[in-house]
Amino acid sequence: MPRKIIIDTDPGQDDAVAILLALASPEELEVLGIVAVAGNVGVQQNAINARKVVELSGRTDIPVYAGCSRPMRRQLVTAEHVHGDTGLNGPDLPEPTIPLQPRHGVDYIIETLMNAAPKTITLCTLGPLTNIAMALVKEPAIAGRIQEIVMMGGAYFEVGNITPAAEFNIYVDPEAADVVMRCGAPITIQPLDVTHMIQSTPARLDAIKALGNRSGQAVYDMLTFSESFDLRKYGWDGAPLHDPTVIAYLLQPDLFEGRTCNVAIETASELTIGMTVVDYWHVTDRPHNATYMRSGNAGGFYKLLTERLARLP
Amino acid sequence: MPRKIIIDTDPGQDDAVAILLALASPEELEVLGIVAVAGNVGVQQNAINARKVVELSGRTDIPVYAGCSRPMRRQLVTAEHVHGDTGLNGPDLPEPTIPLQPRHGVDYIIETLMNAAPKTITLCTLGPLTNIAMALVKEPAIAGRIQEIVMMGGAYFEVGNITPAAEFNIYVDPEAADVVMRCGAPITIQPLDVTHMIQSTPARLDAIKALGNRSGQAVYDMLTFSESFDLRKYGWDGAPLHDPTVIAYLLQPDLFEGRTCNVAIETASELTIGMTVVDYWHVTDRPHNATYMRSGNAGGFYKLLTERLARLP
Amino acid sequence: MPRKIIIDTDPGQDDAVAILLALASPEELEVLGIVAVAGNVGVQQNAINARKVVELSGRTDIPVYAGCSRPMRRQLVTAEHVHGDTGLNGPDLPEPTIPLQPRHGVDYIIETLMNAAPKTITLCTLGPLTNIAMALVKEPAIAGRIQEIVMMGGAYFEVGNITPAAEFNIYVDPEAADVVMRCGAPITIQPLDVTHMIQSTPARLDAIKALGNRSGQAVYDMLTFSESFDLRKYGWDGAPLHDPTVIAYLLQPDLFEGRTCNVAIETASELTIGMTVVDYWHVTDRPHNATYMRSGNAGGFYKLLTERLARLP
Amino acid sequence: MPRKIIIDTDPGQDDAVAILLALASPEELEVLGIVAVAGNVGVQQNAINARKVVELSGRTDIPVYAGCSRPMRRQLVTAEHVHGDTGLNGPDLPEPTIPLQPRHGVDYIIETLMNAAPKTITLCTLGPLTNIAMALVKEPAIAGRIQEIVMMGGAYFEVGNITPAAEFNIYVDPEAADVVMRCGAPITIQPLDVTHMIQSTPARLDAIKALGNRSGQAVYDMLTFSESFDLRKYGWDGAPLHDPTVIAYLLQPDLFEGRTCNVAIETASELTIGMTVVDYWHVTDRPHNATYMRSGNAGGFYKLLTERLARLP
Ligand SMILES: [Ca+2]
Ligand SMILES: [Ca+2]
Ligand SMILES: [Ca+2]
Ligand SMILES: [Ca+2]
Repeated sequence: MPRKIIIDTDPGQDDAVAILLALASPEELEVLGIVAVAGNVGVQQNAINARKVVELSGRTDIPVYAGCSRPMRRQLVTAEHVHGDTGLNGPDLPEPTIPLQPRHGVDYIIETLMNAAPKTITLCTLGPLTNIAMALVKEPAIAGRIQEIVMMGGAYFEVGNITPAAEFNIYVDPEAADVVMRCGAPITIQPLDVTHMIQSTPARLDAIKALGNRSGQAVYDMLTFSESFDLRKYGWDGAPLHDPTVIAYLLQPDLFEGRTCNVAIETASELTIGMTVVDYWHVTDRPHNATYMRSGNAGGFYKLLTERLARLP
Repeated sequence: MPRKIIIDTDPGQDDAVAILLALASPEELEVLGIVAVAGNVGVQQNAINARKVVELSGRTDIPVYAGCSRPMRRQLVTAEHVHGDTGLNGPDLPEPTIPLQPRHGVDYIIETLMNAAPKTITLCTLGPLTNIAMALVKEPAIAGRIQEIVMMGGAYFEVGNITPAAEFNIYVDPEAADVVMRCGAPITIQPLDVTHMIQSTPARLDAIKALGNRSGQAVYDMLTFSESFDLRKYGWDGAPLHDPTVIAYLLQPDLFEGRTCNVAIETASELTIGMTVVDYWHVTDRPHNATYMRSGNAGGFYKLLTERLARLP
Repeated sequence: MPRKIIIDTDPGQDDAVAILLALASPEELEVLGIVAVAGNVGVQQNAINARKVVELSGRTDIPVYAGCSRPMRRQLVTAEHVHGDTGLNGPDLPEPTIPLQPRHGVDYIIETLMNAAPKTITLCTLGPLTNIAMALVKEPAIAGRIQEIVMMGGAYFEVGNITPAAEFNIYVDPEAADVVMRCGAPITIQPLDVTHMIQSTPARLDAIKALGNRSGQAVYDMLTFSESFDLRKYGWDGAPLHDPTVIAYLLQPDLFEGRTCNVAIETASELTIGMTVVDYWHVTDRPHNATYMRSGNAGGFYKLLTERLARLP
Repeated sequence: MPRKIIIDTDPGQDDAVAILLALASPEELEVLGIVAVAGNVGVQQNAINARKVVELSGRTDIPVYAGCSRPMRRQLVTAEHVHGDTGLNGPDLPEPTIPLQPRHGVDYIIETLMNAAPKTITLCTLGPLTNIAMALVKEPAIAGRIQEIVMMGGAYFEVGNITPAAEFNIYVDPEAADVVMRCGAPITIQPLDVTHMIQSTPARLDAIKALGNRSGQAVYDMLTFSESFDLRKYGWDGAPLHDPTVIAYLLQPDLFEGRTCNVAIETASELTIGMTVVDYWHVTDRPHNATYMRSGNAGGFYKLLTERLARLP
């Protein structure tokens, strides 16, 4: 029986690839719904983007919800400088025809968790953690009912991208990340430490384009667009690929290696706000609250991604 | 036409008196609903207490909702040391018979504001600001639709009560207070600076008891219970009375004097967390976001309160 | 035998009055030396001002030292807007003829304390605490040798003057204040709570002018200059007088009332930086480290001041 | 003409090796003096250790001073768990016979810089930055007279050792580090990012022991003792070697690669206190204040170290 997941996301080219990877894997993953959150761009645009991706995959049965349009406490910071003005620049995808679900994304998360058997639903978070934290504050009982939270977010040895100390998803809503980290549910983190190893080299992108289907072409166009920012910054051969590592972990966990430890979120200091302080070496007595991934197998990942994308239209 | 209000509260003896004062004043105030929040005690007990008070007043038509059971980011701190284990120790009130409304208090606030004409509903907050802030994050559009937020909370010249720097309502959920202070809606604050002047001396309590009705007796019993903490601490003749100043301000604003200025909430430092930093002397260029009351007319207040309580059963 | 004191100061009109009050009281106080610190204006100007005041008093035997020209960690903030461009605007005092002592003020403090019998020297601080803290870090053994530190600084119920949360002397060098507060020596604090009660009304200033001596005239001119800032701000009849309360406490302690409690210095948060967090109500279990004065007898103070100034040239 | 340096240090086995490397290189480096600071152990023990190392090298003409015994603002944290109870466990060195210089280390630094031609003296810091910062506060004019500060301290991609976010030398006195980072003098930093590459493998240690002189044997004994902590922690073949990279940089700068950027010190948050926030990717507009080394040539380093140690007794 496939594992039930909700994808919370701010698509984003890499979010789009993550969604496609999940929808291409129905034997392992049942996508119950997709919830948009403010992040790379505003929540309404993210909800449009999510529906575009769902339609690209042919899975128009997947309901898409809009969640929070602002972080819990701070002003929204966005990332058009990376993702383009629509958040999903690159491919020329048609406007979506499926409707946005009327319910608020936070309530969708709460109700789905409260109505399902305990520990049967996994939350895959590909953006700021606002929706999840808001759901946890509005209905704390969900914490004990989540099977696992698998998130793309944070950085330790790679430290930060949006600031010298913070990764974007955590930085946008550090209070939300703090609430999630301390909620007690099992947490697995795919940080920049992993995603910086999963580089979309020209050969890997070409293999995806060579699939010849519309999804492969769209992924190629997306990643070709979004990679330019990181290529200029880091001077690497290929740009990091972030969010699909969350789905890849669910499909093939042995692609990644990490460690159980404490992960705490900095919320007090202007200089380090949004940092994921990872006690990777176990030098404190803070409780272990997450599995923090440190490395990933890029070859294995791209093999998996390419194979799965081939199954889509 | 009476002014429409929603009371957000953690009753609390002084909250109870505030609710009674509002319900005793139907010509000026239409109480649309009461929403409980975690604060003095847990939210479920606070929702029971709110219904007890509604029944005491005879206004069983007032709907009572339960809001959030925890602060936005922090662990709940409660105040049984002041209010007793039920939060409403003192009088012997029967268990409530009216039901708790099924909707979540946060959604009740959002929907009521979104469905009413703009700027026609005032939020009266008598406890931590969790529900209001959660509503503002979940649906930011409510900010522009609130007529006014009148809150009991904070302190400047009286500095703090739960810590040397913080008043209880703000301290319990400083992130929520910060969200509310910056939401853009008109805000009027009744801080300890005011409430420490509104002292329930024996003569004032006796006048309420002498009303001879059950509400007067209950108020006498409540305030006799809750005053003991402050009398020991400050060595005054009468204990401060906090939350009813919010309702008294709506009924008779000239009982209070204050100033428009910036009020900011401290959320970063362990030492000063939950402080209301009031630019009372206008020494900064921070924007004016609140009317901060500094003094109240105790004689006038107790005259009003006693007159109104006489109208209740 | 008179009590031995070192005056650490940033004169400042009110510092000047404090120095004159001390020098006018040789039966009670032996002024060993005066050390300038950066504060109201730069340290070099403050050292000039200190020598002007010493010469005004006729006590050209008092050695004057220059201490630190900057705070321990932060950029220097000055207060020319209150004290004028020289720091001592108002009277027309001649340039000093006595030399500045060549030793660094910090070393003078250390050496004087280390060479005297333990607990025989009192430090009177009228400005930022940089010199005292630097001495404590450079030679921690002095802490156990100080008889008492009597400081003008901080505020609790009056909260702040330079910012909504901070008094100037503490704000300029909060790290230094923190070091001093935790040094273990006996500390007595004269905060704004006291000095705002010690108002230089026209009648009180006129009485000083009427003394007819040059010192009285100079004090009149100084306070007439510096009061204008506070009169505009607070709308009072007379401006607060700050630093002389330190000397008055040594001469006549029963002019002041206060309480032993914990005083902690805020150094972490931008919003509250430099606040003196006073546990006046003993609501925490932080150790008692200071006597915090809350009120002063203004009539008694001005009587003392006027009597003593009459003894000077 | 050799470059003039002052070594500020808390020896420490790796400090000892750094001192030996400097003293073995008189053609390139003239060691004017050594100043001890509180760090790995207390300042008095560190001053004893420094003299032991000087005597081991045969250079009993090098003056050794004791500086500060405590950090600028915080309680001293030490590291006996790494370095042993004496701070220099491992070899059996005789008690020193040369005297400790009577002047305070802070004054030695100030006077040496003020009396020399500008920009002719380099400060090599191998421990917490207390002495340097105290000198900068006591006499700010030294900042413009320092040729360069070359420090071992901090971490960015290796993040922290004493806490998940902080390296020991910075953590012990973050306020001092902050003062130094903002002083305006040229700064070169050898962080954990470099020193974790400079691993003392068994082969490298054996080569030093095989030199056959007493200095080589002592270095072998020192590093064999101190490496055990890191070997257990990281599971590497050889322990990192920290402080000698400072001297190696002066002798052979091309052994190291880095980048000019902003380095800021976290002092506000309990979670991240003492972090060196390095804007390595230039994502902020903070001013470039340091050359931050990121990698080192371990083979070249050990070749240099071994050659130079051979020149000692
Ligand atoms: Ca994303
Ligand atoms: Ca209340
Ligand atoms: Ca002063
Ligand atoms: Ca060292």
